[in-house]
Amino acid sequence: MKIQPVIMSGGSGTRLWPMSRKALPKQFLKLVTARTMFQDTALRACGKHDGYGDPVVICGGGHGPLVAEQLAEIAIQPADIILEPCPRNTAAVAAVAAAWVARGDEDALILLMPADHHIADDAGFRNAVALGAKAAEAGNIVTFGIAAQNPHTGYGYIETGERLFPSVYEAASFKEKPDRAAAERYIKDGRYYWNAGIFLYRASVMRDEMARLAPEIMAAANKALGQAAPSDGALRLDEAAFSACPSDSIDYVVMEKTDKSAIVAPVDVGWTDIGSWSEVASDDNSDNVICVNAANNIIRSDGPLIAAAGVEGLIIVATGDAVLVARRDNAQDVRAIVEELKKRGLQHLL
Amino acid sequence: MKIQPVIMSGGSGTRLWPMSRKALPKQFLKLVTARTMFQDTALRACGKHDGYGDPVVICGGGHGPLVAEQLAEIAIQPADIILEPCPRNTAAVAAVAAAWVARGDEDALILLMPADHHIADDAGFRNAVALGAKAAEAGNIVTFGIAAQNPHTGYGYIETGERLFPSVYEAASFKEKPDRAAAERYIKDGRYYWNAGIFLYRASVMRDEMARLAPEIMAAANKALGQAAPSDGALRLDEAAFSACPSDSIDYVVMEKTDKSAIVAPVDVGWTDIGSWSEVASDDNSDNVICVNAANNIIRSDGPLIAAAGVEGLIIVATGDAVLVARRDNAQDVRAIVEELKKRGLQHLL
Repeated sequence: MKIQPVIMSGGSGTRLWPMSRKALPKQFLKLVTARTMFQDTALRACGKHDGYGDPVVICGGGHGPLVAEQLAEIAIQPADIILEPCPRNTAAVAAVAAAWVARGDEDALILLMPADHHIADDAGFRNAVALGAKAAEAGNIVTFGIAAQNPHTGYGYIETGERLFPSVYEAASFKEKPDRAAAERYIKDGRYYWNAGIFLYRASVMRDEMARLAPEIMAAANKALGQAAPSDGALRLDEAAFSACPSDSIDYVVMEKTDKSAIVAPVDVGWTDIGSWSEVASDDNSDNVICVNAANNIIRSDGPLIAAAGVEGLIIVATGDAVLVARRDNAQDVRAIVEELKKRGLQHLL
Repeated sequence: MKIQPVIMSGGSGTRLWPMSRKALPKQFLKLVTARTMFQDTALRACGKHDGYGDPVVICGGGHGPLVAEQLAEIAIQPADIILEPCPRNTAAVAAVAAAWVARGDEDALILLMPADHHIADDAGFRNAVALGAKAAEAGNIVTFGIAAQNPHTGYGYIETGERLFPSVYEAASFKEKPDRAAAERYIKDGRYYWNAGIFLYRASVMRDEMARLAPEIMAAANKALGQAAPSDGALRLDEAAFSACPSDSIDYVVMEKTDKSAIVAPVDVGWTDIGSWSEVASDDNSDNVICVNAANNIIRSDGPLIAAAGVEGLIIVATGDAVLVARRDNAQDVRAIVEELKKRGLQHLL
């Protein structure tokens, strides 16, 4: 059974401003390793590994050439590059992917992955995928449950139910980002895992469940694909059709409602959702950072020297045209800054 | 009686890094007003005002063209520009100035001023100079005592003694930067004033007192002047002679030891020694600063946008190639950063 990787690379990465920009969102930056997060995602699950095909990439309308270039750098040939004329969240992406892959082989196993997650142990991840494949072949929509390290309130949680296969359980319930008390309850309970936002299923299963649970989304996806046009070696979804698609998450639209959801758990592969500067390692020891009596800061620069003296608990990020200084415990503030940039019409900084 | 302004412009302004650089020290930057501090100093006391001559400028060896350019911008013709081959502190500058001016008129009153002080009330300052001139003509070396606003531990203090002329007193003692307790005692006592580091005296008086109290310095100054060479419209002191000159402050070498020191007090002209970022106003409302829940910071940029979120009590300064983030209550840390830059050999950032 061949696994068809589909990389969701349409995110904007606002909270990683000023490095993440409209023209170059976070997944295309080298924030965690010597490769971009998109490249790491592609290398993790591609034709270089037994049983995997080359990836389908679904990305923002303006990022086709960037995707092609970043794949060429790591010698991966994309199966297809599909361009979203506008962002419509993960359910729409899953619907497009299911429809597209099912055209070729409706029993193909789709591995749907966000491009902005870091996974330290790639081989471990593929082992987890192999475990999940049995359930997916049997008709389940499989998620991956990360062994929770702490009561994180920024992640979703999945409750495990009955055991279906070795290391694979029924997904009994999905919990959106919980409050602290609930998160602590989940950790203590022991049956809950972080929702990695990675999915594995037969193309036809997702297509049919999506059609049943969210017919509008599936119809919009089919229409957007049907009227898609070639564009510089990529395929551009029809704008009118795709922009009419409701914007919702695959968790909300499908996973919470279907009786087919399953979870591989625990998955312990050093998984991190690189959502904000809080999840990015500091560059304290870089040549262009100087710290004097400064500790516990996240410092990154793509050029200017950053000198920090006597400060702690800060995020300091500098690019050639913008500098961010924020509290580390409130990395979400970055969104408010980006909003202010929009309000001031500073398009060149977005 | 004509007053001969002499501007001491040889400082490096290390603590105002990253804007202040070797090639462009703080006195040549527009940090406080729409003009540079050097320009403000020159305009405050120059031939545009009755009784004043055009300034003699004593500056760093590489800054002659910069001085000429900044004076041209404000339509002031320098009397002379004298280049220091190396920095040798204020006593050496005073010695050179005294010898140089005395050559033309040994009774001329020299007004010796640092180029990096801000004075809000220029007319008030010239009134204070007029008060001091009587004592200077009578043979005193006059300082200016600033009405202290608070027990600042970064300034020197002067104790007033007997009254000599209206608003002019004998300077009974000089106190280096005191500790907090001493500073509070001085303020409470009422006879102490901040030492503005500005001096007024007859050229011959300083020349003779310097020769008596610091013959090595006076000899080195004479020799450096005697062997000086013209250089692009300026006069370059002889390097061998000047570098042999001991490096000490005029306060230590002359003022604390002579019995001729006097003080105009109180002088209340909005005086500030712009020594560190703590003394510079924030640019919060500038177009290239965004603050979200950020208060009480000193923020300056000469280009990149600075976005501050959720932080307070910080100094944030950005240039095209360097960013400083330091605690506002420890602006002195900047020195340590500059030391580290030197250690790393990052000459282009100094």
